[in-house]
Amino acid sequence: MTHKDNSFLNKILDIVREEGNGDVPLIQFKHPKELEANLDLDVANGVDDKELEQCVRKILQYSVKTNKATFRNQLYGATDPYGLSGAWIAEAFNTSQYTFEVAPAFTLIELKILNHVLQLFGIPDGDGIFSPGGSVSMLYALVAARYKAFPEVKSKGLKNLPELVIFTSEDSHYSIMKGAHWLGFGTDSVRRIKTNELGQMLVDELDATIQMEKDLGRQPVLVNATAGTTVLGAIDNLEDVADVCEKHGVWMHVDACWGGSLILSRKYRQRLKGIERANSISWNPHKMAGAPLQCSVFLVREKGLLHAANSASAQYLFQQDKFYDITYDTGDKSVQCGRKIDAFKLWMMWKARGDDGLALLADRVMEVAKFCLETIENKPGFRLVTAQLQCPNVCFWYIPTFMRSKTEDTEWWELMHKITKKIKELLTLSSRLMVAYMPLRHHKNFFRLAFTFHPLIEEVDVLDMLRAIEDCGEIVTLVML
Amino acid sequence: MTHKDNSFLNKILDIVREEGNGDVPLIQFKHPKELEANLDLDVANGVDDKELEQCVRKILQYSVKTNKATFRNQLYGATDPYGLSGAWIAEAFNTSQYTFEVAPAFTLIELKILNHVLQLFGIPDGDGIFSPGGSVSMLYALVAARYKAFPEVKSKGLKNLPELVIFTSEDSHYSIMKGAHWLGFGTDSVRRIKTNELGQMLVDELDATIQMEKDLGRQPVLVNATAGTTVLGAIDNLEDVADVCEKHGVWMHVDACWGGSLILSRKYRQRLKGIERANSISWNPHKMAGAPLQCSVFLVREKGLLHAANSASAQYLFQQDKFYDITYDTGDKSVQCGRKIDAFKLWMMWKARGDDGLALLADRVMEVAKFCLETIENKPGFRLVTAQLQCPNVCFWYIPTFMRSKTEDTEWWELMHKITKKIKELLTLSSRLMVAYMPLRHHKNFFRLAFTFHPLIEEVDVLDMLRAIEDCGEIVTLVML
Repeated sequence: MTHKDNSFLNKILDIVREEGNGDVPLIQFKHPKELEANLDLDVANGVDDKELEQCVRKILQYSVKTNKATFRNQLYGATDPYGLSGAWIAEAFNTSQYTFEVAPAFTLIELKILNHVLQLFGIPDGDGIFSPGGSVSMLYALVAARYKAFPEVKSKGLKNLPELVIFTSEDSHYSIMKGAHWLGFGTDSVRRIKTNELGQMLVDELDATIQMEKDLGRQPVLVNATAGTTVLGAIDNLEDVADVCEKHGVWMHVDACWGGSLILSRKYRQRLKGIERANSISWNPHKMAGAPLQCSVFLVREKGLLHAANSASAQYLFQQDKFYDITYDTGDKSVQCGRKIDAFKLWMMWKARGDDGLALLADRVMEVAKFCLETIENKPGFRLVTAQLQCPNVCFWYIPTFMRSKTEDTEWWELMHKITKKIKELLTLSSRLMVAYMPLRHHKNFFRLAFTFHPLIEEVDVLDMLRAIEDCGEIVTLVML
Repeated sequence: MTHKDNSFLNKILDIVREEGNGDVPLIQFKHPKELEANLDLDVANGVDDKELEQCVRKILQYSVKTNKATFRNQLYGATDPYGLSGAWIAEAFNTSQYTFEVAPAFTLIELKILNHVLQLFGIPDGDGIFSPGGSVSMLYALVAARYKAFPEVKSKGLKNLPELVIFTSEDSHYSIMKGAHWLGFGTDSVRRIKTNELGQMLVDELDATIQMEKDLGRQPVLVNATAGTTVLGAIDNLEDVADVCEKHGVWMHVDACWGGSLILSRKYRQRLKGIERANSISWNPHKMAGAPLQCSVFLVREKGLLHAANSASAQYLFQQDKFYDITYDTGDKSVQCGRKIDAFKLWMMWKARGDDGLALLADRVMEVAKFCLETIENKPGFRLVTAQLQCPNVCFWYIPTFMRSKTEDTEWWELMHKITKKIKELLTLSSRLMVAYMPLRHHKNFFRLAFTFHPLIEEVDVLDMLRAIEDCGEIVTLVML
C-alpha cells in the first residue's frame, strides 16, 4: 500500500471527460444528509484503485458541472482549456513561486505576464504579484496604502497612528469589510458611500465624506473604486474618483476583479478609463476570463513598494549570498511563503490566443449580455433592475402571470421576494439552470445572469435560460397559490 | 482563434511524463537573462497548438524536476500521485469552496477530512478550514486569538485596545513577522524567545517573558509553538508550552506546518504530545506528506469561532432564505471569498492509502532521515549541527580535506560560510543535488537535507547525495584556493 505507482493519473482524463461531458445534467441536487448517505467518503481504510475510481465518479456525478452554459450561478464558469492545461502542468511540476532557483522559468513567466498586464492597464512601470484571490488582493491594497502613508506601521503597528478611515461604495465587495477587520482598522472605519441606481459610487458624496473625515481629524487611507460590482456589474466613474483621490491625496485602489477583463476588449476597455490613474488594481482572470480558480492579479503603481511593505528577509530562503541575481527572487514581495504558480494558467491562455483572441472573447461576452438584456427588455413578465449594461451582468425579476395585474405594494414585493427564491429552487431541482438571486439595497430578491468567456454561449442558449425561468416561474404559481 | 477545442488537454499527460521522467536532469541551470533569451515568452501574438507545445516543453526543460530524489532544496518534493489526481480533477471541475450549492460533494469532503484530521490531532470537537498556505494559516491563528480576547476588535479595530504582544521562538517561521505587520500589531509586538541548541523554545524564558509583559501592562495574545522548525526541524516541548499558556490564560497556537505530518505515524506521533491542548493548529500536507501545493489546514479548538470572527454575511452569496440547510455553506468562516477545492487532494491521498498507508510513509521518511543522520555522524569531513533527530531534517557542514587540519577560529568559520555556499552552487550547476543551505543564529552557513513522503528515497539515494556533496566539496578546494 505504501508504494503505489502513477497509473491512476492515466484515468483522470477519461474520468473528467466522461463525468463532465455535454450530456450529463448540470446538477443532481440532493440535500446534504441525503448526499452524504450516497457517497463513501470515509478515509480511515484505504481502497484499491478500482474502488477509488468508483468513489470519485460518484462524487463527480453529484458535483455541479460548471462547464455547462446553464451554470450561471457565480461570476465564474467553464475554464479555458489552455488555462486548465497550465493548471495541470503547474500542479504536476509542483513548485513554489518564491525563488528563481526552484522556479526559474515560472519566475520569468510571472514577470512577463505581469508586465504585459501592467502595460494593458496603463501603469507600465508598476509592479505586481499573483495572490490567492480577490479578497487577499484587497488585503494587499490596504496594506500597501497604509504602509505608504505610515511606513512605521510595519514595526509599530496601528496603536499610535491617527484614526484611519477607508472609503468604498455600498455596492462594493464585502472583502473590504473582512480586510478592515483582519488588518486591525475595524469595520467601523469603512465609510460606505451611496450609489446611484446603476450601482456607481456617488463621487460628490465621496468627496464630501473625505472632507468631513479630514475635518474631524481622521486620516483617509484608501478609496476603493469598483470596476464591475458583484451584483449589477457597475463600474464606478474612475476618472472622477481619481480626481477626488488626487485632490485629497488619498490612495486610489480599483477592485477590477470582475470588470478588469474588459481591458482585453478594444471596444469596451474605455469603460475602465481612469484606471491608469490608480495606485493599485486587482483583477481576477479566474472570473470572466475563465482561468481556473485561483488566478488573481494584484498590481501596484509604485515599483519597490510591495517588497518594502512585505519583506521579512528570511535568511533560510532569501540568502543574500546566492550565486545568481537575487532580484529575481520574488517571494519577499508576498505575504505568503510557498505560493502556487498561478501565473502559468494565464500565460498559457494568452500565449494560445494572443491579444486578438482574448479581445474577441471579451467582445463576444458583451454581445451576448447585450442580447440578453434587450430580449428581457421586450419580454412580457420580465423586468430589468437596470437597463444599462456596464459589465456582462443582467439583473431582472420574473413576474408570474398571476402577479401581473396586481398592485405593486409592499405586500406584492414581499411575495416577489419569495417567488424569486422559489423559482431558483425549481430551476436547480429540475437541473435546467443555476442562476444567482439576491436582494440589493431597497430591491427585493431578483436574478442575476452574468456571462463569462467560457463556454461560448450562443443567443439560443440565452433564450433557453429565459424560457426555463419563465416555465419555473409559472409552475411557482401552482406551488405557492 | 476564439473557439479552440479541448484537444490540447490530451497532450498534457504526455508532456508531463516526457519532460518530467526519471532520465531528465534535475535542473539545467541558466542565469535569468540567459534563460529568458532561450524561451519564447511573449504573449501578444497567439501561437498555434504545435508552437505552444514546443514553448511549453522548453519551459519545462528548464524547470526544476521537484519529483526527483535529488530535489531536497525545500520542505516539499514530489507529489503524491493520488493528490495530483485530486488536484487535476478539482481544477477541471472548477468551482469554489464557499457554498453547498456550487460544491455539494466537495463541501462534504472538506467536512469529512477536517473531522478526521481534528480527531487525529486530539481536538475532535473543533473546527477548521483549508487556507492558501501556512502563512495565511498564521494570520487565521492571530485573528482568532485576538477576536477571542477582544471581540470588539472586529468593528472597532486595534486603536483602543491595550498594547498587544505575541510570543514565538527565535527559530520559528518568519510568517509571524509578516502577520504581525499585516494585522496591525507591528513586528515590535513579537517577542522572540531564545531556543536551546536543538532549536526548541526555552519554556522558562517564555514563562518569564509573558509575566514581565503582563507586569508592564501589556496583553499577551498568542503563543506560537512550533512543531518542526523550518531549518532544524525542532519540535517545541508542547506539554510545557501548554502549561505556560494555561497558567497565563494565553492562546496556544501550534505551527505544525512541517512537523504535523508526524501525526500520521503511530510510532512518531508522540513527539507531538501536548498538541491536543492547543487552541489552534496549522498543518501543511503539501510539505512532508506530498500533497500538491497548496494544501494547508487550519484547525481551531472552539467550534463557531471561525464563523464569528470572519463572517461578513454577504447577502448575494450567503442568502438566509436558501432552500437547503445553509449551515453547510462554509464560505463565511473564511477570509477569502472564492476558495480552491484543496481538500480534495488530501482526501484522494487518504482514501487511496488509508490511515495505515500514510503511517507507513511517515515511518519510512523518519527511517531514511535517521539513516542519513547516522551515516553523517560517522563520515569523515561531515559534521552535524545537532545530532538529535526530531523531524526528518538533517543539518550539517561538509568540511573539505584542506580545511580539516586548521584551527577553527573566526576566519576559518567565515571561510566555511563561503565554502558551503560554493558547494551548493556546484551541486546545482552539475545538476547532482539541490539542497538547502542557510545560517542560523551563531551558526555559519550549513546544509539542510529534509525528507518528504515522495519520492520514496532509499538508503542508496542518501549515500549518493552525500557523495555528491563530498565531490563538490573537494572541487571547491580547487576553485577557491
